[in-house]
Amino acid sequence: MKNFLNVHDVEDIHALVDGALLCKQNPRADHELGKGKTLGLIFMNPSLRTRLSTQKAGRNLGMDVMVMNFSGEGWALETEEGVIMNGDKAEHIKEAAAVIGAYCDIIGLRSFPSLKDRKSDYTDHVINEFVRYAGVPIVNLESATVHPCQSLADVLTIEETKEAGKPKVVLTWVPHPRPLPQSVGNSFAEWINRAGYEFVIANPEGYDLSGDFTGNAAVVHEPEEAYAGADYIYAKNWSSYEQYGQVLSQDEKWMVDERKMNLTNNAKFMHCLPVRRNVVVSDAVIDSENSVVIREAANREFAAQAVLKQILSHG
Amino acid sequence: MKNFLNVHDVEDIHALVDGALLCKQNPRADHELGKGKTLGLIFMNPSLRTRLSTQKAGRNLGMDVMVMNFSGEGWALETEEGVIMNGDKAEHIKEAAAVIGAYCDIIGLRSFPSLKDRKSDYTDHVINEFVRYAGVPIVNLESATVHPCQSLADVLTIEETKEAGKPKVVLTWVPHPRPLPQSVGNSFAEWINRAGYEFVIANPEGYDLSGDFTGNAAVVHEPEEAYAGADYIYAKNWSSYEQYGQVLSQDEKWMVDERKMNLTNNAKFMHCLPVRRNVVVSDAVIDSENSVVIREAANREFAAQAVLKQILSHG
Amino acid sequence: MKNFLNVHDVEDIHALVDGALLCKQNPRADHELGKGKTLGLIFMNPSLRTRLSTQKAGRNLGMDVMVMNFSGEGWALETEEGVIMNGDKAEHIKEAAAVIGAYCDIIGLRSFPSLKDRKSDYTDHVINEFVRYAGVPIVNLESATVHPCQSLADVLTIEETKEAGKPKVVLTWVPHPRPLPQSVGNSFAEWINRAGYEFVIANPEGYDLSGDFTGNAAVVHEPEEAYAGADYIYAKNWSSYEQYGQVLSQDEKWMVDERKMNLTNNAKFMHCLPVRRNVVVSDAVIDSENSVVIREAANREFAAQAVLKQILSHG
Repeated sequence: MKNFLNVHDVEDIHALVDGALLCKQNPRADHELGKGKTLGLIFMNPSLRTRLSTQKAGRNLGMDVMVMNFSGEGWALETEEGVIMNGDKAEHIKEAAAVIGAYCDIIGLRSFPSLKDRKSDYTDHVINEFVRYAGVPIVNLESATVHPCQSLADVLTIEETKEAGKPKVVLTWVPHPRPLPQSVGNSFAEWINRAGYEFVIANPEGYDLSGDFTGNAAVVHEPEEAYAGADYIYAKNWSSYEQYGQVLSQDEKWMVDERKMNLTNNAKFMHCLPVRRNVVVSDAVIDSENSVVIREAANREFAAQAVLKQILSHG
Repeated sequence: MKNFLNVHDVEDIHALVDGALLCKQNPRADHELGKGKTLGLIFMNPSLRTRLSTQKAGRNLGMDVMVMNFSGEGWALETEEGVIMNGDKAEHIKEAAAVIGAYCDIIGLRSFPSLKDRKSDYTDHVINEFVRYAGVPIVNLESATVHPCQSLADVLTIEETKEAGKPKVVLTWVPHPRPLPQSVGNSFAEWINRAGYEFVIANPEGYDLSGDFTGNAAVVHEPEEAYAGADYIYAKNWSSYEQYGQVLSQDEKWMVDERKMNLTNNAKFMHCLPVRRNVVVSDAVIDSENSVVIREAANREFAAQAVLKQILSHG
Repeated sequence: MKNFLNVHDVEDIHALVDGALLCKQNPRADHELGKGKTLGLIFMNPSLRTRLSTQKAGRNLGMDVMVMNFSGEGWALETEEGVIMNGDKAEHIKEAAAVIGAYCDIIGLRSFPSLKDRKSDYTDHVINEFVRYAGVPIVNLESATVHPCQSLADVLTIEETKEAGKPKVVLTWVPHPRPLPQSVGNSFAEWINRAGYEFVIANPEGYDLSGDFTGNAAVVHEPEEAYAGADYIYAKNWSSYEQYGQVLSQDEKWMVDERKMNLTNNAKFMHCLPVRRNVVVSDAVIDSENSVVIREAANREFAAQAVLKQILSHG
């Protein structure tokens, strides 16, 4: 694996999940592998789980880790070609990526979408410019379109907890007061498609994700239909892809609650966090025994470690 | 010691001070103790001494250290139960604490009071929620009510420099332009009470600290009375506990100056820093040979190390 | 070398460049030298290259590195003597420097000028107060007047790439929309003077740097005159020293472009970065084979390492 940008960089996702499980059994087993190597974690946006879990994963492998927040510690980057840079952006991404690449053996990058311009966001320009100019492997810590470290942790969590060989997994849109990226939804869809589970996506009209990510997944526009018989309810809000970046609905009927959970096959509740209680999911559901959100977050460490290990091993 | 939240977590404060002195004599003696363990330092508020000294202490013990600032790098946390989280708080402290606990072996947490609602602040809710949900030992890096790492460094500094077996220690309120927490004052009071020194607290009317922390300490409302014969003058501003969070006085007569220091038994001057010169203390006093403020700050490293060492050893 | 504040702290700059080249050949050769030592990097202002390269350099030498941003993570420092600190500055630099010095074996400090008061800025008060009060060696990560880590990397880059024994080096002022410090220009001038190259400075009228830094360098006020026969074009904007901190010109004729580069002896293009494309330099020039800006930035790691190594060795 040269870069870890999205599911297409992974030859065999089940092998990668197995690698993550090995890391979980003995996190420091490969502590010599990364000795003398430096992991740079670059955040254009806030982060808790990704920040700490990836840092920990790098340290488990013996890597040095340098963390930088571009806003606050640095400055805004220009990403367009041929611009006369006389505005508020002090550096072009070409130079920034190349320079960071000079100091790091692997770079992890978080860069959210604008949610203003769909065409531009969906080129995933920022992370691709890092790939082009940094000269070292890039790990996607959530880009404009996908969040593959999260999705790997999600599949790992399902593999650890599933009872059926081919569980029914539901990705359900949920309400949220602010416009959020589609990245977690997109990414979850392409990973679950690859994992070979039964997969249904439920969201209101106007909230269909791009078919480039959802592929052949069933899409329904009423929650009850999807919940019936589900083994996993994976909740996530996203703003509209069709009416790009808009909040079209905050309809409370989409919140994950006990009534709808009772329609399922004793389903596990999943969410990538941070989660807004009693907006996205009721207290009763997230505090129930069927909630695996903390396990899912804890698995971020081993997902990141498996990715870094594969890059270090085959790089 | 499971957690280090306040003086009540310490069985024998003099034994802990002795432990800190051992750390100071040879800071890297226990460099193997923390190998493969991770210390997470979580700051809800700014910090200089606590940030650097605790980081250093962790590294002295061979720990990996991850530092995170919630404001700027993360987002605001909801701390109330049962709230519909549709405002500006993106995550509940329950999830945040549990997730950070998943990546860390010990968590240090700084979280200041609101100074708006005394009843709420004095439950020390934020740090107690971390204790409840993180699943790993918590070290208090200043909570709403106390700052025990500071107090341990203070007692260490007194033990290193005292001439009398039972010195007279004075905690004096001093002026400050902004409303500050009572935490350093509260904490100093409960540690000095435990240390067995002669102890007097001097503050203007309306500025009495809570008796839960001051216990049987003498409280006087004129500075001169307290300074007479003192071996240590420990200066600190706090906002009113009675008229909660208010600045009732900025009376300059309470500033520590040479005139009042001349009433003492050649007292040492102490302050936890940061300190406003010529508001809290005159240049002449803080620049004098009797000022031990830098030693006191330097001792923060060894205080934190003794605490971490005890948690690592007996955890 | 006790401190690394400016060129005058360096006995033999060519020996230091040779030291940096050795670090570059084998960055981890001296990994035992810094074991158990702590490097504190204190940023009063934003930074990318300096932040990451100095951190990496410290780690190459086996040092622990603690990074702190004063704005955001800390608070504003008072730097004047005898002030009644009842404004927005919570701590005096005397205490801050001494305390940081208590936790660190070497301190790197970045502190930009105000560009309001020339006399005050040119005392380089902030870094000199750290020298005075920290009690440990100080490395200048760009002060009000100079940026010696950058200049060392610049000379290293010239030594690596030069074809003539005594190249003609041109420092040219370039346009920029905002007022910038003179520090990089000042520093480059004093290092190139010491390096013994042919040296010409080109800038508009009103933009002459202080003679304290430029010494006997030729200063011309038209770009073409300087470019003729040059082996290196080093571009940098600075605000006026004479009309202190003012932006007197944004004349595009000073931008580095192909037309002027054609007047040179196939000159290399240099800039310290971050650089505004098509304001400071045209895309065609910075993207050409003659541009060495990324090499120059990469060399920051080895420049910093050579400095730290010398301080650790002879400290």
